[in-house]
Amino acid sequence: MNIHKLSLQLAAENYPIIIGTGLIGEAGGEVHLPHFRAKTGVLITNETVAGLYLEAAQEFFRRAEYDLQPIVIPDGEQYKNREVLFSLYEQMFEAGLQRDSFVCALGGGVVGDLAGFAASTYMRGLDLVHLPTTLLAQVDSAIGGKNGINLPVGKNLIGTFYQPRAVISDVNLLATLPDDEFFSGLGEVVKYALIVGNDFVSFLEMNFREIMERVPKILANMVHYCCRIKADFVARDEKEQLGVRAILNLGHTMAHALETVFAYQEMKHGLAVAKGLAFAALVSLEAGTLSENEFRQVMELFRLFELDVSPPPAVDDEQLLTVMMRDKKMTAESLNMILLRSIGQPFLYSKVSRELLQAAFAKWRSGMAAG
Amino acid sequence: MNIHKLSLQLAAENYPIIIGTGLIGEAGGEVHLPHFRAKTGVLITNETVAGLYLEAAQEFFRRAEYDLQPIVIPDGEQYKNREVLFSLYEQMFEAGLQRDSFVCALGGGVVGDLAGFAASTYMRGLDLVHLPTTLLAQVDSAIGGKNGINLPVGKNLIGTFYQPRAVISDVNLLATLPDDEFFSGLGEVVKYALIVGNDFVSFLEMNFREIMERVPKILANMVHYCCRIKADFVARDEKEQLGVRAILNLGHTMAHALETVFAYQEMKHGLAVAKGLAFAALVSLEAGTLSENEFRQVMELFRLFELDVSPPPAVDDEQLLTVMMRDKKMTAESLNMILLRSIGQPFLYSKVSRELLQAAFAKWRSGMAAG
Repeated sequence: MNIHKLSLQLAAENYPIIIGTGLIGEAGGEVHLPHFRAKTGVLITNETVAGLYLEAAQEFFRRAEYDLQPIVIPDGEQYKNREVLFSLYEQMFEAGLQRDSFVCALGGGVVGDLAGFAASTYMRGLDLVHLPTTLLAQVDSAIGGKNGINLPVGKNLIGTFYQPRAVISDVNLLATLPDDEFFSGLGEVVKYALIVGNDFVSFLEMNFREIMERVPKILANMVHYCCRIKADFVARDEKEQLGVRAILNLGHTMAHALETVFAYQEMKHGLAVAKGLAFAALVSLEAGTLSENEFRQVMELFRLFELDVSPPPAVDDEQLLTVMMRDKKMTAESLNMILLRSIGQPFLYSKVSRELLQAAFAKWRSGMAAG
Repeated sequence: MNIHKLSLQLAAENYPIIIGTGLIGEAGGEVHLPHFRAKTGVLITNETVAGLYLEAAQEFFRRAEYDLQPIVIPDGEQYKNREVLFSLYEQMFEAGLQRDSFVCALGGGVVGDLAGFAASTYMRGLDLVHLPTTLLAQVDSAIGGKNGINLPVGKNLIGTFYQPRAVISDVNLLATLPDDEFFSGLGEVVKYALIVGNDFVSFLEMNFREIMERVPKILANMVHYCCRIKADFVARDEKEQLGVRAILNLGHTMAHALETVFAYQEMKHGLAVAKGLAFAALVSLEAGTLSENEFRQVMELFRLFELDVSPPPAVDDEQLLTVMMRDKKMTAESLNMILLRSIGQPFLYSKVSRELLQAAFAKWRSGMAAG
């Protein structure tokens, strides 16, 4: 068992993020659980994860003398909706949850978002612990307290900022992750590399083979790196009011547009983010803030991790543009977007015009970021 | 214009509670608004209040150069549900709300609870300002950040703790309040008197005629008193985790049971609280913590304000008991309940047995608290 621990320090509270190999499956894991007021709670997971890890996770809690009733939801982003939310509430009521009970989210981003939102709103907030089972959740969605559900009119339109009591990331669980889910997580990993540069870029370049082979010890180092970066941004701007946390949205303007146009289902989030990162690099190049040399280094990272950052086929570019311009302000003439000055130097550019986006699109379609 | 101002100080933030006469309707009111990041937002109210005060409230904001689009919901506790919540979300989306927009709740407890919950969960939280229009909302529900909606299985089961940016209580709005709503508010007012005793009991005894005649200046003093008491409890225990804020639940164990059995509709909250306070006094008498003399003084307060604290007719007492015993723990052998040692000395009693409740019930049925 290999273990990393860091603490996310917010204004009034802090909680541990624990990353390691064999945390859930091996005896001794109970030492990593925070103290919960009640001995009972619910474990929310999806059908796929339940088949793989429900038994181990329940046993993990049982060893610490916590008794969790499972609630299993269907697997997929399309279930991050109102109906599943209210069925969660009903099952939480039937499980007899009280105000001192707690909720464990065992799964990826969808489970974490749904369970996190349900925990934050049931009886005005229950204790929450995340056991993320995907790379994307371990490096991103389980860290920082954001949760949400989708409305037909918009992704994550309803949600809260609600910090968990702990995040426990066992990278051994990534062994069973389907390839597209793993690559999706790598999209967010590369995002962190573009944000901080230097050390972490070197780490990825030196270890990319072990990462692709999912060597647990290296994955634990990588996840730790990512969590440290994210925790640092979150601690400085928990509720995204200062523009600090917004830096983490690098690549997400295009990613959200792609997800909207593809109705969230046909494109994994991190794969959309990878394309979004390439697009942000192209816009930076067009805006003259990123040099051609740096742009090629960005592209090199995608190649290293075999991430496809070619433009999406069969999409009307103007439709994507329209969705992007609506992302922040419905009637915007220009767009806020995180661009790059270099690898490790992201910044908020508030005057991205439609023309600039169109020029970047043209370069993208011409094969400039096709690898 | 008469004005009272106090500040609710929480761990990391504080916000003003402004009480006065003629705050909304008269020019100059804009000085009481906090600064909001955006100039636009929505004003959520119900059909009844809209007919009386929507125009004045919009004008109040317009004078401060804020432009609010109205969203009008139906009037009644039965609308504090999932369907109305999601129709609010849809209308908030159609109004083009952004993350820096704000929400104004103009109305009583139902509007405040629904608008507060919607504001706390739309785009992970928008700024909120309460303009309470009922006595109950001005002295209780608009203060302290609690919100929520009902599920078929339980009242306020879904909600958050979410503090507003400001509460602005204009007691002139109480002039149009129906009598049963006004008496309902008085139920909570008497609760505060039983909690703090002395000064506030004297104030009520000295001013009960002016209060019953709704003399604005006296109402403003009374509301100020209540808000100060509530703010003090909330500041010491915002999220009800320390047992401090729980003191404010005096009378609410029975009140919630009555509301459940009467399906929330046939009994106004504060009127249920008044009966609940009388019942808590009876339980205190039975438990031997409250003297007969003090018990009679409690009853005198209800008589003063013409509050009917006789036992509810046509209800199966055992049914009420069962609902009460389920209130906190489904399989409880005893109940947590706030009792009185004397007027001004409430305390949490954790061993209220079914037998004790039955004995108090018998006394109640025998006319002991009928006035």
